[in-house]
Amino acid sequence: MSAGATRAYELLIQRSRERGLLESCATLLEWDEETYMPLEGVEHRSRQRALLAGLLHDRLADPVIGELISEIDLERMGPFERVDVEEIARLHRRHLKIPRTLVEEIARTATIAQHEWAAARRAQDTERLRPHLERIVDLKRSEATALHDGRPDREPYDALLEEFEPAARARDLASLFLALKSDMRPLLDEIRGSTRSKNAGIDVLQRQFPVELQRRFVEDAIATVGFDVRRGRLDTSAHPFCAQIGPGDVRLTVRFLAGDLSEGLYSALHEAGHGLYDQGLDPERWGTPTGDAPSVGLHESQSRLWENFVGRSRGFWAHFFPKAQSIFRPVLDDVDLDGFHAATNRVAPSASRARADMVTYDLHILVRFELERALISGALEVRDLPAAWDEAYEHHLGLRPDHAGEGSLQDGHWASGLFGYFPTYTLGNLIAAQLYLAAQRKVGDLESAFAAGDLAPLLDWLRTHVHRASHLRPASALVQSATGTPLSHHAFTAEVKRRLSSIYGL
Amino acid sequence: MSAGATRAYELLIQRSRERGLLESCATLLEWDEETYMPLEGVEHRSRQRALLAGLLHDRLADPVIGELISEIDLERMGPFERVDVEEIARLHRRHLKIPRTLVEEIARTATIAQHEWAAARRAQDTERLRPHLERIVDLKRSEATALHDGRPDREPYDALLEEFEPAARARDLASLFLALKSDMRPLLDEIRGSTRSKNAGIDVLQRQFPVELQRRFVEDAIATVGFDVRRGRLDTSAHPFCAQIGPGDVRLTVRFLAGDLSEGLYSALHEAGHGLYDQGLDPERWGTPTGDAPSVGLHESQSRLWENFVGRSRGFWAHFFPKAQSIFRPVLDDVDLDGFHAATNRVAPSASRARADMVTYDLHILVRFELERALISGALEVRDLPAAWDEAYEHHLGLRPDHAGEGSLQDGHWASGLFGYFPTYTLGNLIAAQLYLAAQRKVGDLESAFAAGDLAPLLDWLRTHVHRASHLRPASALVQSATGTPLSHHAFTAEVKRRLSSIYGL
Repeated sequence: MSAGATRAYELLIQRSRERGLLESCATLLEWDEETYMPLEGVEHRSRQRALLAGLLHDRLADPVIGELISEIDLERMGPFERVDVEEIARLHRRHLKIPRTLVEEIARTATIAQHEWAAARRAQDTERLRPHLERIVDLKRSEATALHDGRPDREPYDALLEEFEPAARARDLASLFLALKSDMRPLLDEIRGSTRSKNAGIDVLQRQFPVELQRRFVEDAIATVGFDVRRGRLDTSAHPFCAQIGPGDVRLTVRFLAGDLSEGLYSALHEAGHGLYDQGLDPERWGTPTGDAPSVGLHESQSRLWENFVGRSRGFWAHFFPKAQSIFRPVLDDVDLDGFHAATNRVAPSASRARADMVTYDLHILVRFELERALISGALEVRDLPAAWDEAYEHHLGLRPDHAGEGSLQDGHWASGLFGYFPTYTLGNLIAAQLYLAAQRKVGDLESAFAAGDLAPLLDWLRTHVHRASHLRPASALVQSATGTPLSHHAFTAEVKRRLSSIYGL
Repeated sequence: MSAGATRAYELLIQRSRERGLLESCATLLEWDEETYMPLEGVEHRSRQRALLAGLLHDRLADPVIGELISEIDLERMGPFERVDVEEIARLHRRHLKIPRTLVEEIARTATIAQHEWAAARRAQDTERLRPHLERIVDLKRSEATALHDGRPDREPYDALLEEFEPAARARDLASLFLALKSDMRPLLDEIRGSTRSKNAGIDVLQRQFPVELQRRFVEDAIATVGFDVRRGRLDTSAHPFCAQIGPGDVRLTVRFLAGDLSEGLYSALHEAGHGLYDQGLDPERWGTPTGDAPSVGLHESQSRLWENFVGRSRGFWAHFFPKAQSIFRPVLDDVDLDGFHAATNRVAPSASRARADMVTYDLHILVRFELERALISGALEVRDLPAAWDEAYEHHLGLRPDHAGEGSLQDGHWASGLFGYFPTYTLGNLIAAQLYLAAQRKVGDLESAFAAGDLAPLLDWLRTHVHRASHLRPASALVQSATGTPLSHHAFTAEVKRRLSSIYGL
């Protein structure tokens, strides 16, 4: 590259890193909001977040970004550098289309609405949330329209989806969801017809597990899978999440319930999966696009992989069940490894996404995907959402929620302004299965290593093929490269069937 | 005012509020750093803080600020609005003199140095801190020189002092300190000669007080003095502080020691004093100069007032001692109110500022004031600081620290870049005494109200005459207005003498 082009690239990256720093301040604000912020701090917090959102927007929309990019010769760059420039260019074009006032208003409104949602959910009162959610939907429709720009091959919802999953289209996702549903519904019927279905339903995970002991158990588990607590921490919050503040500062939150071991344990393994990804990213690239994951769905693949394909495997429990028995003594004294392992794989459809099993989980996502797509297109209005929610559950899962708290108030994503986010959960599930099976083909019998308490072979493989491969974009290209097969639902179906067949004797 | 001048004022205030918002993000980062940030997060945090410091500097140094101010007619403004404009103008002129790179470098270096200081103190190793402190002193000398601008009537140190205490001058402070010392040293000798001196030294506060019980006691105490926990919170940190994030979000930190009730209790009352000030500020003025205290010394007056003049009064303990006896049963069963009250007023010179009594506290500050003035003038170098520290203690307090952790490594202020901050502690002590006595003259017998658990009369008086009087500047003008007398050491000397005379039978 010419000296000028090199200089332009360096200046672009410097701006990207500065933006990353500022964004990481916003991430700390979000983390604090869910963990330690006092009740009356929310109004001020909404202003802080609006300001930072506005400043971040200005940086991406800055005309200097466009000028610097035009000086760079993409053909003469390395694979990481090239992706960095292309990705910054994409974000620049995106932000040029949205006014700063809209960005600020969404941040401000969403911060308030998120807290109103939590109160509305506790009160099971959809009317309390309605005006806030209407405002958010209005704002997100404006954003979608501005971003969509009238392109005939896309729908406005696609523009929101792009924020989390740059290459995804609603039309393709709809086909994928239906294909997956046509695999899962018959499997669900088979399991329900199994003679072992009742026994596997014995709720050994729903006994009394003192929270302090759960914390010890979970801390041991996340350290064993490889999460470095010197470079992170574990807190509790009403809704578990992972926040990447910086290369040495990755924070997980979980929720413990004394009467349900799976709540704390699986939220911890899930968030630790995100945390392992963040701790595995190249710190030298921090603040550049290739210093982060190519998509939210790919990030989610790591949480799903550790939560479900590791954390519900027999090998994992061969190592951890004796530890659980010992820590929680005498609560699990009458349970054996097989019974415990079966309980962690219990299939039982319910109205709750957070407590869903591997067979029905993506049907919950399908419901949300269809509803949010309709909310953004205008086919559905917020006032009709509670009824539409219940009908969609009847249609896809064959059951109806008992009350609004388990119905349309169940998740806070929409109140937080997250539209187009839910599909990343299902993409994560599918990718997780593909990666897990590919790792197994390459590394050898993973479960034997788990049984010996050795999670490193799997993590090492993921470090190389996923965490340090952020130049492979879109996410589907990384999946193809890492697994040798295109992104699809086949691996997920096959692996879920294989696991549940042995447990349920199908 | 003309429409143009009104518009200019509004734009100026809008910018001030935005800057306040951004500054409050930096405050949250600082709070997090001392409470929850993981060990390896410090490097990234130093970059975040440098960026925010740079952005904040740019906003104050922005030429638009100067232009807006020039359009405003000060003569036609209300008292609050006028002070807002004058104060923004002062900060604007100040920041025009410092380059952004220096501001960023100080923020980045100080974040690292602060953490190195904590490690050096634990290791009692002055050499570990030395290179970091040398760098900070270099940077602060550059800042002082840039700000001082060669004015013959000021010394460079004054320019640093101005950040915390706008109207103070080192020369005047030196006289004040010596006058105070000449009152305190004879008082100290008298107390040492008292026959009650030995009995008052019985360490009833240094028994074993379980930390969880201390927390309950302290939470009750800070709620009783009027701190609203819905608009704040209480955490623990190695070094107690108060962080004002926003009008509904004021956070205190304390440090509990199982073997010393006074540590947790008095750090809590101290920080709650700061918190009461912050919670008493007019939320409508948040983000403008008059939405905050006129000076750090005045802010400190509130922490000192609640810690010492309330929290060591007999009236306070008439209410709280039975509670303490009950919560800590049986630890205080053999102690009576008079004995406990005397213990909270124990005078015993030591090398530790944090544990100093009311008589010797300001001698500790005098040591620091002289040393930091010499560090900034160049009369003292960092390599010579440990020895100079010990000699100054010998000179002013008549004792020498046992080791570096109790010597020059005792406080983290300098490592954090705080030069010119220490004198605000003594100003706070003096102002606290003046305000307390003035309140007593106006409101009536405060201690009788305390004894009935009623702290509201004092707080109400402070709300009116201090917390909502931020237009009275400099701090000395507010003191004059609230108390009817000029800022001096006389009230402090009189009140400390009066209290200790009855306890020590002088």
